[in-house]
Amino acid sequence: MDAPAITAFLRQVFDQVADDFVVEDVQPMACRVRTPIQARHLRPGGTVSGPTMFALADVSAYIATLAMIGPRALAVTTNCSMDFMRKPASGVDLISETRLLKLGRQLSVSHVLIYSEGIEAPVAQATMTYAIPPAGV
Amino acid sequence: MDAPAITAFLRQVFDQVADDFVVEDVQPMACRVRTPIQARHLRPGGTVSGPTMFALADVSAYIATLAMIGPRALAVTTNCSMDFMRKPASGVDLISETRLLKLGRQLSVSHVLIYSEGIEAPVAQATMTYAIPPAGV
Amino acid sequence: MDAPAITAFLRQVFDQVADDFVVEDVQPMACRVRTPIQARHLRPGGTVSGPTMFALADVSAYIATLAMIGPRALAVTTNCSMDFMRKPASGVDLISETRLLKLGRQLSVSHVLIYSEGIEAPVAQATMTYAIPPAGV
Amino acid sequence: MDAPAITAFLRQVFDQVADDFVVEDVQPMACRVRTPIQARHLRPGGTVSGPTMFALADVSAYIATLAMIGPRALAVTTNCSMDFMRKPASGVDLISETRLLKLGRQLSVSHVLIYSEGIEAPVAQATMTYAIPPAGV
Repeated sequence: MDAPAITAFLRQVFDQVADDFVVEDVQPMACRVRTPIQARHLRPGGTVSGPTMFALADVSAYIATLAMIGPRALAVTTNCSMDFMRKPASGVDLISETRLLKLGRQLSVSHVLIYSEGIEAPVAQATMTYAIPPAGV
Repeated sequence: MDAPAITAFLRQVFDQVADDFVVEDVQPMACRVRTPIQARHLRPGGTVSGPTMFALADVSAYIATLAMIGPRALAVTTNCSMDFMRKPASGVDLISETRLLKLGRQLSVSHVLIYSEGIEAPVAQATMTYAIPPAGV
Repeated sequence: MDAPAITAFLRQVFDQVADDFVVEDVQPMACRVRTPIQARHLRPGGTVSGPTMFALADVSAYIATLAMIGPRALAVTTNCSMDFMRKPASGVDLISETRLLKLGRQLSVSHVLIYSEGIEAPVAQATMTYAIPPAGV
Repeated sequence: MDAPAITAFLRQVFDQVADDFVVEDVQPMACRVRTPIQARHLRPGGTVSGPTMFALADVSAYIATLAMIGPRALAVTTNCSMDFMRKPASGVDLISETRLLKLGRQLSVSHVLIYSEGIEAPVAQATMTYAIPPAGV
């Protein structure tokens, strides 16, 4: 699946949150996704909330997996580990850079770096495992 | 801090999400918190979203820490690891049970179990580390 | 499998490290395991090494899983997250307390607390995921 | 510190395990380390043990940190998360590639990929957090 196909699929299966994620680039075993930051993503002081960063990491690993295996809505996260390393910049979109490190029959494993747009040092890293349902589900 | 004091503090510093978390019980080094599930927490099929579970684990560890050290809005999550073990029951509140395992000068470490209310097997577990700012901040 | 059966199985399949692990108690979905600390487990200053704690957490989750599903040497760790919370006491055995939180067809998920014997506060916590091979393997 | 300085420091403070780690390259915020595989690192079937991979990830993050801050024996691991993605090749050295993603005053955070030498797909990934003691300790 390419970026437009994934965008259409996300809109179909996750319509209520699809506005939170813009698929910017899809490559074999990799993708880049943007969360356009809005008031609802912020915490006092203008910083981006933890759940917003978690959601971006989670969707990014899902997209990197779907891009390789095709649309399977039922892929589910089984494990996530995140390090929150820096305070995200205020009023700036988040960008994720994801590498799919393993694509097995039952599991995919990714590494996700999250950046405040335009700033070199990452704000968070995540490792994500997805359980892949059998084809046809 | 006891449950009413923590509830008041959450409302003061995180007003926009305070409705998502009801502090049910606070004990030394432990707490129980409820997320009353509403439409915005759901995914297709009626299951509770991953970010909703992450947010509950994150706030629960924060509450367990604050209960011991007093109100410090600037405590920040530095690490989280979560296992998503079962699909949450549809239309049922989430309940967290948190144990604070370490309370150091700079870090607190917790273990959080998340349940669908009324069901014995947990839906998720999380380990959370908070960085604690110096007193007075 | 009970404690003697698991001990015999460990000796059969992991003979070179079986001396590092004494199965003290096995219950449904739980176990307690001891690592008798010897010179080779220590680091300068007399503290127990990180790999020794990792190995105890890993074997403990394996034992809790085997106790429920029977001997399958090929169960493999897929994910581990550990928090090292306190320096282990010098010259004291390590004891793990493991709870199996999920036992699915393909995955088991555990929570492990590691203690220095006789000291109440845990030195480490671990969450472990094992991939379970199909029966007969 | 460069590779020879770090090698000398490891031999001084961790003499009993220094043979397990060869510092191959040190760059700003990055390093490459080799574990020469010997019989004691193996499990039945010839695969490399989990604790051997953990130890390599742990030492690699330590080296990447020391290379930037200078010799401080007392830096300690506070958190580790590992995904074991593929069975390591039999009879082949392990190579780690580490990126230091954050170097703060109190914490360093790294991402480590572990490879069987000569094979492109990584066998494991790890995220490591080290607590850094104040200078002079």
